[in-house]
Amino acid sequence: MNIGAIAKHIGGELSGDQGLEITGMANLAEALPGEIAFFRDAKYTRQLERTRASAVLVPTDWAGVCPAQAIIKVADPSAAFMKVGELFAPPPVVRDPGIHPSAIIDASVTLGAGVHIGPYTVIEAGATIGDHCVIEAQVLIGQHVTMGAGCHIYPQVTVREGSLLGNRVILHTGVRIGSDGYGYNPKIGADGNITIEKIPQIGIVELGDDVEVGSNTTIDRARFGRTKIGNSVKIDNLVQIGHNVQVGDYSGIIAQAGIAGSAIIGSGCIIWSQAGVSGHLKIGDRAQLGPASGLAKDIPEGEFYLGLPAGPRRELAASMLLPRTVDKLKKRVAELEAKIKEL
Amino acid sequence: MNIGAIAKHIGGELSGDQGLEITGMANLAEALPGEIAFFRDAKYTRQLERTRASAVLVPTDWAGVCPAQAIIKVADPSAAFMKVGELFAPPPVVRDPGIHPSAIIDASVTLGAGVHIGPYTVIEAGATIGDHCVIEAQVLIGQHVTMGAGCHIYPQVTVREGSLLGNRVILHTGVRIGSDGYGYNPKIGADGNITIEKIPQIGIVELGDDVEVGSNTTIDRARFGRTKIGNSVKIDNLVQIGHNVQVGDYSGIIAQAGIAGSAIIGSGCIIWSQAGVSGHLKIGDRAQLGPASGLAKDIPEGEFYLGLPAGPRRELAASMLLPRTVDKLKKRVAELEAKIKEL
Amino acid sequence: MNIGAIAKHIGGELSGDQGLEITGMANLAEALPGEIAFFRDAKYTRQLERTRASAVLVPTDWAGVCPAQAIIKVADPSAAFMKVGELFAPPPVVRDPGIHPSAIIDASVTLGAGVHIGPYTVIEAGATIGDHCVIEAQVLIGQHVTMGAGCHIYPQVTVREGSLLGNRVILHTGVRIGSDGYGYNPKIGADGNITIEKIPQIGIVELGDDVEVGSNTTIDRARFGRTKIGNSVKIDNLVQIGHNVQVGDYSGIIAQAGIAGSAIIGSGCIIWSQAGVSGHLKIGDRAQLGPASGLAKDIPEGEFYLGLPAGPRRELAASMLLPRTVDKLKKRVAELEAKIKEL
Repeated sequence: MNIGAIAKHIGGELSGDQGLEITGMANLAEALPGEIAFFRDAKYTRQLERTRASAVLVPTDWAGVCPAQAIIKVADPSAAFMKVGELFAPPPVVRDPGIHPSAIIDASVTLGAGVHIGPYTVIEAGATIGDHCVIEAQVLIGQHVTMGAGCHIYPQVTVREGSLLGNRVILHTGVRIGSDGYGYNPKIGADGNITIEKIPQIGIVELGDDVEVGSNTTIDRARFGRTKIGNSVKIDNLVQIGHNVQVGDYSGIIAQAGIAGSAIIGSGCIIWSQAGVSGHLKIGDRAQLGPASGLAKDIPEGEFYLGLPAGPRRELAASMLLPRTVDKLKKRVAELEAKIKEL
Repeated sequence: MNIGAIAKHIGGELSGDQGLEITGMANLAEALPGEIAFFRDAKYTRQLERTRASAVLVPTDWAGVCPAQAIIKVADPSAAFMKVGELFAPPPVVRDPGIHPSAIIDASVTLGAGVHIGPYTVIEAGATIGDHCVIEAQVLIGQHVTMGAGCHIYPQVTVREGSLLGNRVILHTGVRIGSDGYGYNPKIGADGNITIEKIPQIGIVELGDDVEVGSNTTIDRARFGRTKIGNSVKIDNLVQIGHNVQVGDYSGIIAQAGIAGSAIIGSGCIIWSQAGVSGHLKIGDRAQLGPASGLAKDIPEGEFYLGLPAGPRRELAASMLLPRTVDKLKKRVAELEAKIKEL
Repeated sequence: MNIGAIAKHIGGELSGDQGLEITGMANLAEALPGEIAFFRDAKYTRQLERTRASAVLVPTDWAGVCPAQAIIKVADPSAAFMKVGELFAPPPVVRDPGIHPSAIIDASVTLGAGVHIGPYTVIEAGATIGDHCVIEAQVLIGQHVTMGAGCHIYPQVTVREGSLLGNRVILHTGVRIGSDGYGYNPKIGADGNITIEKIPQIGIVELGDDVEVGSNTTIDRARFGRTKIGNSVKIDNLVQIGHNVQVGDYSGIIAQAGIAGSAIIGSGCIIWSQAGVSGHLKIGDRAQLGPASGLAKDIPEGEFYLGLPAGPRRELAASMLLPRTVDKLKKRVAELEAKIKEL
């Protein structure tokens, strides 16, 4: 793409050769010849002066030194850079309404208007798919699943029987909705033999409106009743949500976090990456659990817990100062010992 | 479903309108109108008195105040509530014997009696499938896999070549059996070039009888020989099991735990959620590794290790008291300092 | 397989019955009758003397006691044992060039010479597949994906639109390339209503030459620009790599580690299992982040960081000695108190 087209797209003022070919985007420090970068903040002046980028977006009032062949002045270089991103993006994928002939859809399925069903997707008996849903290739929708309008199910997702999805739900590749929760009763028979009896998992999963779930995340069906994810909850990749968990509206759960069975998470909460919540705990509204933290007690409303085991953030700060505190104590004790000796 | 049918199903004594429509189940504190809840323990009396549930299960000898329109008296409200769960469960899925015409099964595959093979499943050359196995849609069974009787393979599972599955094995959606283990030899050539040589992973995975594996869990094939999961081992979602790991009978591995290569886990062990076991370690029979713990040494038989790095649970308790211990010390030193000054 | 054939395969000197049937491999301590094991190190002499293995590989100069029915002397028992592994390996899977008739390949796709495309695989419009690629069953290759030569894509992988793969890339079962990154703008409307706006993720993923990615790992597409994995990077199972992450050549990322958005990892680094890297951090070349560690600041070149939060390994050692340091201090304070009393 030539720099002239880029300048035009973002409505910037170009100095340099209109025909200069730009092959990609990068930040100032890492750009290679052929790439475009942006400069906004004076603290990166040194990076700007040494950049290998062929073109740089700068603020309208910028006056300085830059080795790039082309400079584009714009009001907001950061926003303009995002707009440049559109030009380098792969062409947007459009999924037109229509059902691929290889999709296997049970005769009892109710399909809304304008749905797209991709190749090798299977939709089982009794399912209901809302208007304008996009269900991509190689998806499995189980028996009696109900899906609202405008959902987008990416390839190779499984939604097991009885799950309820609201409107505009997005499930990314490899998401598993409605697998059996983990529950067993170990038994020792009269003969001394151990058997580990599986506890039936006969509940369902319910996802609210505008829920988005990242790739390869798993949300287990309830032991009975339902595992319930509220409206506008946004879940990242590789998250585990156990049976009978409840998550309130607008909460976020970041990558690789795990929520054990029957935990109740309020609304507007954030569970940061790789954090773990033990079973049956309660997290109040607008509370947060920090990254890699392990929760073993409830979090009150609005609090930020952190650590392993997790406690209020301010307490953790104290415990992190402990080595220094002990060092100081050691000196004071040594001084005392010296004084005592002198007496 | 009307409340009369529910009362009849659980053999309870109903006070209220037989025709009252019940739409779902919830606990007392969270129930909405239309839902049924249960009350068992006097400490929840306040919740009972304020519940919005339309119906509540109570003990036979209960006498109190409850705003719900219907009350059902039963001997054990908690057990009865689970029985109510059956009524709200999605209709059970029945997989009748039969092979979907779209399944691609190599001519050399041996199929047992009464198997069910779902749509778009692929079974490669030389595989053997035991009697009454259910292999759902979009599954991949690799070459020369041997599967015992009564296994249940959920959709979108892959079992790579040569794996051995016992009887009654359950693999949930997205499980990956027999992927290559992680093993490389970095080499620097005479010319100074680095190459990272892949170490062939030519062993297999063996799963014993009654093994159950949760969604999106990965169990790698051995470097050589076999990765071996004993009988009645129950593995949760998103667990990683490295090459040549051995897990003894009746052990449980909870969600997002990871077992590195060649670790040996005894029988009757529990590895709790998000715990990690380093390579080549040994965990004795009936030992446990606590949640989010990182193990860097062996655990003796029957011990419970916890922490990062993990040690005996009692030691961790001491280290968690450290901030308080230091606080007390600080006060004693200050007192000493004051006294010394007075002398 | 009889022991004679094994001895011949590894060029060893056999004492015992040529026709002895060997059914598997195991280590000395765990071998059962019928299995073969190896002995190399004198510290395992006791295991050798008590092994139940039917055959054992020993060093050429070995002279000792062993209950096994057959002994094979070889120069390097450990290396020879690996060679025995070849005999017990499942027959190697060969994927001949050819396109399965059930594969759905858009007319606009460019296929190189000698490619293998498995059953029920879908390749969308505009994709380019290099020479001699093997794409197994039930794979989804999105629009305008470009794949170099000699790649191996295992079953049930998804590569979303626009991704760029180098040469000889290996993606194991269940890998997700190019899913949307996690990015939202919460907004409170004039009416007080909250909406959580999705930030478009319009970048791509680029994987260099010789990259290998383990089962069920997820690598998100960039917000804009690209998520970039360098040459010869080896990634284990269940790893999460966020949008716009960059990983330098020859780095390794072990199972269940997570790299948050826009982090930059140098070349020759190792991120150990279950470690987490916060967003926008920088890890210098040849640095390492220890297992289960949580990184909240940059790691300089060549350093090994460890802990939660992670710091230089030597500092962690000091903090682990803290309980002992405090214990000693306590004794010294008690002595001082006693002395003061005496004064």
